[in-house]
Amino acid sequence: MMQLNSLHDLYVDQLRDLYDAEKQIVQALPKMASAASSQKLKEAFEMHLDQTRNHVRRLDQIFSHLGTSPTGHQCEAMHGLIKEGNEVLQAGGDATVKDAALIAAAQRVEHYEMAGYGTVRTYAKELGYNEAASLLQETLNEEGEADKKLTSLAEGGFFSSGINKEAKA
Amino acid sequence: MMQLNSLHDLYVDQLRDLYDAEKQIVQALPKMASAASSQKLKEAFEMHLDQTRNHVRRLDQIFSHLGTSPTGHQCEAMHGLIKEGNEVLQAGGDATVKDAALIAAAQRVEHYEMAGYGTVRTYAKELGYNEAASLLQETLNEEGEADKKLTSLAEGGFFSSGINKEAKA
Repeated sequence: MMQLNSLHDLYVDQLRDLYDAEKQIVQALPKMASAASSQKLKEAFEMHLDQTRNHVRRLDQIFSHLGTSPTGHQCEAMHGLIKEGNEVLQAGGDATVKDAALIAAAQRVEHYEMAGYGTVRTYAKELGYNEAASLLQETLNEEGEADKKLTSLAEGGFFSSGINKEAKA
Repeated sequence: MMQLNSLHDLYVDQLRDLYDAEKQIVQALPKMASAASSQKLKEAFEMHLDQTRNHVRRLDQIFSHLGTSPTGHQCEAMHGLIKEGNEVLQAGGDATVKDAALIAAAQRVEHYEMAGYGTVRTYAKELGYNEAASLLQETLNEEGEADKKLTSLAEGGFFSSGINKEAKA
């Protein structure tokens, strides 16, 4: 049973949840990249894989300062999110529609992380862990940018029509 | 196996995912409300239960226009998110820290829904389903407001100190 005696306990538990989530994402992103048919989407997933490895390193750094282990919390939500992504990987149909579905799955993952990092960043500030707070803020910003990048690939812009419009065609 | 031949197929599949997610949330919110020790948090969960029932009604309306069934897609991610919420319900420790943990779990749920509704709202626009697009936008706005409300309960404001600060004390 989880024991939540202090905000510090909750902070560590939430960091472990994110650590496990990031590790799962590191495993999942190469499959997403190889399943993507749009070259730009493939590159976006590959770029985010590099970022994700860096998010793991930031968490390692925070845990090393805390003097405690990063493992011990399985992120059940990320299991479910990745199961949904796998459903898309196995789906039949049109390649561009599948790309749109990959984007939808990936944006759900980004949103999970935005909620999670927003929470731990706020706890870190409250607890006076300023260095950790700014590392967590950096990751939060990158998750937000990754989400926006996926939106722009889906919706298109001035120079490209966007994957959704191609999926409709 | 999922078959994604068109953006319309993907739209219907994503709507079914959200329908199942909302149904799961309707079951979970009363437990969250009764576990909350802060009266304001209890009320926030109860208010969001009413909103969630209305989100289900909006989806029913959209499916009735589409002439197709809302069921047939289990939302695996919401299973995982609610499992995480249940871990908090069963956790031992300080009541205010548990309230902060309930908020963290609920904000992950809200973010899942924001990602999901953002996606289907965009598809509906792309497909020219304008009435559905505006119903989905209404729900999206309410999910965003629910998330902000939870942030303000956690962080406090001019008139209250916030659950995080109490959890630290």
